[in-house]
Amino acid sequence: MQILKKAILPKGFKANGIACGLKKSGKLDLTLFYSDIPAKASAVFTNNKIQAAPIKVDKGHLKLNKFFHAIIVNSGNANAFTGKAGIEDAKKTAQLLADALKIKKEEVLVGSTGIIGKRLVLSKISVALPELVRGLDKHGIHQAKRAILTTDNFSKEITVKFPLGKHTISICGVAKGAGMISPDMATMLCFIFTDANIKQAALDKALRICTENTFNCITVDGCMSTNDSVIMLANGCAANNIIDENNNFNLFTQALEVVCLELAKMVVRDAEGASKFIQIKVKGAKNFKQAKTMALSIANSNLFKTATYGENPNFGRIVSALGATNSEVKEEEIKIKVSSLKKKEIVVEAIVGKGKIDATVYTSDLTPEYIRINAEYN
Amino acid sequence: MQILKKAILPKGFKANGIACGLKKSGKLDLTLFYSDIPAKASAVFTNNKIQAAPIKVDKGHLKLNKFFHAIIVNSGNANAFTGKAGIEDAKKTAQLLADALKIKKEEVLVGSTGIIGKRLVLSKISVALPELVRGLDKHGIHQAKRAILTTDNFSKEITVKFPLGKHTISICGVAKGAGMISPDMATMLCFIFTDANIKQAALDKALRICTENTFNCITVDGCMSTNDSVIMLANGCAANNIIDENNNFNLFTQALEVVCLELAKMVVRDAEGASKFIQIKVKGAKNFKQAKTMALSIANSNLFKTATYGENPNFGRIVSALGATNSEVKEEEIKIKVSSLKKKEIVVEAIVGKGKIDATVYTSDLTPEYIRINAEYN
Repeated sequence: MQILKKAILPKGFKANGIACGLKKSGKLDLTLFYSDIPAKASAVFTNNKIQAAPIKVDKGHLKLNKFFHAIIVNSGNANAFTGKAGIEDAKKTAQLLADALKIKKEEVLVGSTGIIGKRLVLSKISVALPELVRGLDKHGIHQAKRAILTTDNFSKEITVKFPLGKHTISICGVAKGAGMISPDMATMLCFIFTDANIKQAALDKALRICTENTFNCITVDGCMSTNDSVIMLANGCAANNIIDENNNFNLFTQALEVVCLELAKMVVRDAEGASKFIQIKVKGAKNFKQAKTMALSIANSNLFKTATYGENPNFGRIVSALGATNSEVKEEEIKIKVSSLKKKEIVVEAIVGKGKIDATVYTSDLTPEYIRINAEYN
Repeated sequence: MQILKKAILPKGFKANGIACGLKKSGKLDLTLFYSDIPAKASAVFTNNKIQAAPIKVDKGHLKLNKFFHAIIVNSGNANAFTGKAGIEDAKKTAQLLADALKIKKEEVLVGSTGIIGKRLVLSKISVALPELVRGLDKHGIHQAKRAILTTDNFSKEITVKFPLGKHTISICGVAKGAGMISPDMATMLCFIFTDANIKQAALDKALRICTENTFNCITVDGCMSTNDSVIMLANGCAANNIIDENNNFNLFTQALEVVCLELAKMVVRDAEGASKFIQIKVKGAKNFKQAKTMALSIANSNLFKTATYGENPNFGRIVSALGATNSEVKEEEIKIKVSSLKKKEIVVEAIVGKGKIDATVYTSDLTPEYIRINAEYN
């Protein structure tokens, strides 16, 4: 497996990113991902009961339709908590793009990130669409990866390639991180593209497994966003023998997991105000759910996170976080190891019992800078 | 009902508080509460799976025994995550006090608060016991209420009196708050004394109801302690006709709820680093659990808490916290009102549906001072 820490679009994909004026700063804020050939799609969305308008529209399109050509994403406005008008705005965005590309609106997926509770200014998008479409290019991913960002400090991108028979499969992912730096910013968007020829059920299963072990194993402040989305397109251009749940499924899933895990870690590294990157391993659990719940309980403990920021090893706070979940845990079975807190990369290892299952989650410390960033009005 | 914002022990109770050297500062750290007449006891303890040694010992005593004479409390050391040795230390503390008072060790309850994971220095307690017992006095509550504190800025105390037939019932409570200012400090202890003559089942039920609506409705940082305890003694000295679940139960419960609610609010007002006192009302829920879960989800949201600190009204963060619980909620039914954030006392009101049930929780803002306090090693 070849891992490249930059985005290289797989065969048959193009992208572009431009500034249409949704961001007051004038930075890039409108993105288009495009596949010449109709691509299968798979997606995982936030569990928040309040879901942003584009998620509602995408769920409808994913139900109605089997193949997709395009994903259009705006940054600067989350189009969340915007009611029926917001849904109309997301649908209209899809329609406008479909008209420009001469495809059906159900072949378009939509994503938004930015301020919650404000209407999108659709006219800015419609005016910019011709330029956005005209600039589509296989190297356009370099504008696209920047146009999906809000307050991230760096772009998150990765490409993995692996051989399959005589063919080479490529998976490329870009993400927008948990940098809720301005007020009301919604959290994470991730777009993944592959030229693999893969059955729909296998694609769905692989994405679900990988998301569970990666994006669902990171936390910055425990606050669940209304917009979190991971959307994947697979266009089959690699011309490999089709991957299904019995053929080369693990090979594909392993490569996809590398893409998801690396992007997830980049999101944590770019967390607002973070000064430390913390890996928390819970070992000896009875099952994965227990291990992950306990690891997340530590990762979301403000007391643990401030202690890490203060470089003050504090076993009491780890123990009380372990005991705070619904899972049974015996004091005498707990063993805790913490690497030196003086470093930027911290590893916490907690043995919680005699079970055989482990889980690892990733988080950042809680710093005065986090508070400054999130308290200040833009 | 007469409400006094200071501690006045009901008939038949005495107390004392001294310094025995557990706190390096030399401040008061050993407390004794005592009832001449054997008193019924009721207690509510933390749900943390890791429970401090005194809680384990108290649970045993409460199971074995129907009447109690004394509660001994040390501050400066939580006696938590101390294994079997810690349990022996808590048992020995009870035994030493029982010997000094010439009572049975099962008639003693024990409480601890302070550093987690360190053994108690029992010799300091045993040497100090004669002085602690000698000084027992009905006005001794003024030393006692200070000796249970760790890093609290002020003592938490209240007394409520109400007539019952020809008699006057008195309920007095003191608490040690959620001031986790030094590392490893465990959270809340509360001791309540009443001279009411009340059946055990009614006492248990009243305390359970009141705790659920008060102490379980406050949060500072969402971190569940290993030592949280509310312990209540009722010695019957008021000589009223016995209160049971059908006779004067609501009258007694109302008075007890005032005691618990006022103490709970004082704990929040003294939260580490807090600059705001925030009341969050969720209305229109289907049931109390839903209302409370949603209110706590807002109260524990770091993004909401930093926005409040920054005096930056932020509906998006409230909405996403409402949607983050397991309860169904419809975007179009949500209505949010927030009082001026410029003030010290903030009220957030969220209507979440067409149900008829409300819940109110209390919390503080998240400030750079919270991080400074919790990051610094003592």
